[in-house]
Amino acid sequence: VALDELSIIERFFRPLAGEGAFGLLDDAALLDVPPGCDIVVTTDMIAAGIHFLADDPPDTVARKALRVNLSDLAAKGATPVAYALGIGLGPDMDADWLDGFAAGLKRDQETFGLRLLGGDTIAVPAGPVVSVTAFGCAPKARMVHRFGGRPGDLLYVSGCIGAAAAGLSLLTRAPGPWDALPPTARDALIQHFRVPEPRVALAAALAQYASAAMDISDGLAGDCDKLAAASGCTATIEAERVPLPSGLEGADETLLATLLSGGDDYEILAAVLPRNSTAFEAAADAVKIPVTRIGALREGEGRTEVLSAGRPLPLYRRSFVHGRDPKA
Amino acid sequence: VALDELSIIERFFRPLAGEGAFGLLDDAALLDVPPGCDIVVTTDMIAAGIHFLADDPPDTVARKALRVNLSDLAAKGATPVAYALGIGLGPDMDADWLDGFAAGLKRDQETFGLRLLGGDTIAVPAGPVVSVTAFGCAPKARMVHRFGGRPGDLLYVSGCIGAAAAGLSLLTRAPGPWDALPPTARDALIQHFRVPEPRVALAAALAQYASAAMDISDGLAGDCDKLAAASGCTATIEAERVPLPSGLEGADETLLATLLSGGDDYEILAAVLPRNSTAFEAAADAVKIPVTRIGALREGEGRTEVLSAGRPLPLYRRSFVHGRDPKA
Repeated sequence: VALDELSIIERFFRPLAGEGAFGLLDDAALLDVPPGCDIVVTTDMIAAGIHFLADDPPDTVARKALRVNLSDLAAKGATPVAYALGIGLGPDMDADWLDGFAAGLKRDQETFGLRLLGGDTIAVPAGPVVSVTAFGCAPKARMVHRFGGRPGDLLYVSGCIGAAAAGLSLLTRAPGPWDALPPTARDALIQHFRVPEPRVALAAALAQYASAAMDISDGLAGDCDKLAAASGCTATIEAERVPLPSGLEGADETLLATLLSGGDDYEILAAVLPRNSTAFEAAADAVKIPVTRIGALREGEGRTEVLSAGRPLPLYRRSFVHGRDPKA
Repeated sequence: VALDELSIIERFFRPLAGEGAFGLLDDAALLDVPPGCDIVVTTDMIAAGIHFLADDPPDTVARKALRVNLSDLAAKGATPVAYALGIGLGPDMDADWLDGFAAGLKRDQETFGLRLLGGDTIAVPAGPVVSVTAFGCAPKARMVHRFGGRPGDLLYVSGCIGAAAAGLSLLTRAPGPWDALPPTARDALIQHFRVPEPRVALAAALAQYASAAMDISDGLAGDCDKLAAASGCTATIEAERVPLPSGLEGADETLLATLLSGGDDYEILAAVLPRNSTAFEAAADAVKIPVTRIGALREGEGRTEVLSAGRPLPLYRRSFVHGRDPKA
């Protein structure tokens, strides 16, 4: 049986449609906004061979496509409500893959309380390519930005840093200390890469206490550069404070550099006024999200200073670049 | 010079960012909603080799990506305000193409009064793939749906039907009566395919007078089937009433079947209560958009009856399918 656009929508996506989507039977959807909220919008696209591996399980692809967007919303202090899905399917697409993909969407819709609003399903020469535009609600006028940080603000990260980079290294058989870990620890690292943990529950604490925040998607060092630059200052990170994945805590400087500049963490980097730090830590603790103070913003400009034992940590890269760069 | 994601955003897309986009320097955008409006959301994706030709001029690709979305909004009675842009760029991408693409976005932002809110730029194995999610405002509780039509409603189309199908035939060198047209007429058909004319100005008339509407993207016959089915009835179209492209008016039945089932018209199909028809026609005339009554909804179910000289017109297809279908 040929899977054309209409039958794909009917079979796999219609069961996921929520309020305002009109069963995906209309040209467009209605986005209802709870009173007292600002609508925060984010778009993230992922492509096979670039952001996920072609043989990654389809449910993890769906969940990653959603979660990278939910992570952006959380960093802005917004709670997710709905999303639009654009999906480009290559000629090798089959019903099994779509079944798994839809199951992943359904699972994370339930986990995070969001609904499918609409979208588009197209054929592409090489796929899958998944584009999600997600909608969240932030308390009125409380959206958190990358700008807004000030010298003296304390820098926090959620969770640990570098697990996804280690997981990708395992998947691509790049040798490293991860190879020596027990199988369960290796699986946990791979899972971090495939299915990141967006810090949705931290949104309210960020909206209340963060002066600036972003999600870490391209490496802690380079992303911290962006937050500091947007806030008109620079930053110091004390590498030994940065929480590392279980089993990799004793990282030497080379490994530390890899973990602190690897991609796909989808943890939160937040700047918090010192007088708000206790309240922020308590609010994070109340929603069971670990946050760790790793440094501070300071006067100046330029790249974040990453210190290890008081000396600058040599970083061979600041950021992880997904795929190869298009050429000029 | 390598064009990485950040430099592409800075050079080509930042100049297009509008209110709420924070200069594309943040993880997400703020979507402001004018009071008294419902937010209507639509997503349409287009891919090289499927929805446009790989050597189509990049400004027309950008404008088509926007316009297919604006067409959906117009059909729902919504006026466009903003959009999010996801773009996947293949390895052969260059700055000239992006220059042209950004110029096309800028031109249509000005034409239609909309702003870039945010988005994502990624590498893909084969591109470009462009995903636009567009936001429009409909008068509160007046969004127009595909459902809502009733037996007896008159069916209208805007503009003419089949110009884009003829234009695609010219571009792909499929022989037909378009070959005999003068160069300016042939160019006009090609332009219809590359840069459709979304009927944005018709949105208010639709919100006020249409009981159901949709944009015609996959062929008049098949799309009319969808509107009728969503409205719980069926339809009759009188083929000789359907306005055809200049130069193709004297179409025989074979050509008529091609034009009435071809894709990419991006005209509006609207169902209007007979008592509203005069007011609807006057409202369309006031915004200088030609609308033509082509048939009516009627009791029953099943496919639209397309009559030519009172007899069913043989249709070898109902709808145009972009690209090939993924396989089951």
